[in-house]
Amino acid sequence: MASEHSIRRRVQFSETDAAGIVHFSNFFRYFEDAEHALWREAGLCIHDAAAPIGWPRVAASCEYHRPLRFEQEFDVTVRVSELTGRAITYTGEITRDGERVATGRWKIACVSKLPDGTMKSTPIPGEIASRLAPRTSI
Amino acid sequence: MASEHSIRRRVQFSETDAAGIVHFSNFFRYFEDAEHALWREAGLCIHDAAAPIGWPRVAASCEYHRPLRFEQEFDVTVRVSELTGRAITYTGEITRDGERVATGRWKIACVSKLPDGTMKSTPIPGEIASRLAPRTSI
Amino acid sequence: MASEHSIRRRVQFSETDAAGIVHFSNFFRYFEDAEHALWREAGLCIHDAAAPIGWPRVAASCEYHRPLRFEQEFDVTVRVSELTGRAITYTGEITRDGERVATGRWKIACVSKLPDGTMKSTPIPGEIASRLAPRTSI
Amino acid sequence: MASEHSIRRRVQFSETDAAGIVHFSNFFRYFEDAEHALWREAGLCIHDAAAPIGWPRVAASCEYHRPLRFEQEFDVTVRVSELTGRAITYTGEITRDGERVATGRWKIACVSKLPDGTMKSTPIPGEIASRLAPRTSI
Repeated sequence: MASEHSIRRRVQFSETDAAGIVHFSNFFRYFEDAEHALWREAGLCIHDAAAPIGWPRVAASCEYHRPLRFEQEFDVTVRVSELTGRAITYTGEITRDGERVATGRWKIACVSKLPDGTMKSTPIPGEIASRLAPRTSI
Repeated sequence: MASEHSIRRRVQFSETDAAGIVHFSNFFRYFEDAEHALWREAGLCIHDAAAPIGWPRVAASCEYHRPLRFEQEFDVTVRVSELTGRAITYTGEITRDGERVATGRWKIACVSKLPDGTMKSTPIPGEIASRLAPRTSI
Repeated sequence: MASEHSIRRRVQFSETDAAGIVHFSNFFRYFEDAEHALWREAGLCIHDAAAPIGWPRVAASCEYHRPLRFEQEFDVTVRVSELTGRAITYTGEITRDGERVATGRWKIACVSKLPDGTMKSTPIPGEIASRLAPRTSI
Repeated sequence: MASEHSIRRRVQFSETDAAGIVHFSNFFRYFEDAEHALWREAGLCIHDAAAPIGWPRVAASCEYHRPLRFEQEFDVTVRVSELTGRAITYTGEITRDGERVATGRWKIACVSKLPDGTMKSTPIPGEIASRLAPRTSI
């Protein structure tokens, strides 16, 4: 239903650091915000405290091409690039005025939350997979 | 057992902002870190996902006297200034080389966590009150 | 020209904590985001690395009435409540579906940035004062 | 002089998220804290507002093996894995009780800060290179 989504954001002051630019760790938060907006667009919610499953990060990476500064507006686009039985891999791109600011790639795993607080890999529910799966051309 | 505690910290780069100083919201995190260290010193843990009670903030305030910059070391002292039946009020002070950097005051309430996720004011357990209560002079 | 402004926001996952609600320190960031939007609305920018003046926080406080959770939408309204020769005091309110979530009050001072990195209180430039001053009724 | 360094940290409450574990973006801050401690150990400071050079991130990645929870203690080890003429690549490892929690890899570039605020790749000063270079066995 939705395997790609874009959001527009503006740099908040608390996201900058003493070098005068957005702290590199916040780019991962920008990508995550777009990812969660994609889930909402698909009619899903990635976090429900009462749900028996969760979606921890398995890996995350980002390449930085240009800095972002206070109050600049930018666009974050996220795409489901791979959806397997138990994990989802995304690619993301941050642009500003058409120029590439950063590119990212990250993977989340579907886990069941055990009563003792630990997590165990589990198959992605069919309803979620069908809503997020990238459409395949014929 | 313990109604006052101090910790020493160093400013991390991610805590600074584009003005070149620690972002003002992070002072509340410094005070909270010292508060939680005080609980550990008293043999307590303020957050236990499995516990039926929690400790949300009711109010928090801070006055800023001097800025902190990257890599500067500072001390955070927290004191239980008032402990009533259902709430605890703290005062905190941040200093650097003997100079006052910031002073804070905040209040947490004891709540029981209801099954629907809401919270309801509840009496502070006696064991916790006795471990955190400021000693009264005769 | 503009002494009050509102923004609508949605709780991002990275703003929550292990208690399942928005970490109390982030409410100060929400208020600041609305404050900076007010400045933009007034045709101003609160931070310019090249400018000779800056606006550090002198004091900040918040009272918490209800928690906010992941993905909830809320409104932040900020008002200039006092504008003196060298400082601005704001009041802010966060609401959700018409219910009061938090109320805040904070004060920023106008300072000149000295070559050695220190800051010194200085009068608020007339252009800024006139754009942010609350309108007085006759 | 120093091409590897370890720090011990404890999870702060503000670093956790609603899933009850440390938010994945904060692991990048843990690695950075250890990196900056390595620079201090080598007698260097990575950020000086008055210096003509800076060290922006070019790329950063992390693999997550186990979650961290509130108040858990952990160790962060960072190593200079490659030092070329204009960039430094680090590898990092986070462990807890001897178990691997996360592994990271990131690259910073040496840039000169131009008057207009932009940055331009520049050679790493010899003094810095010699203090951080991994010792080569004969």
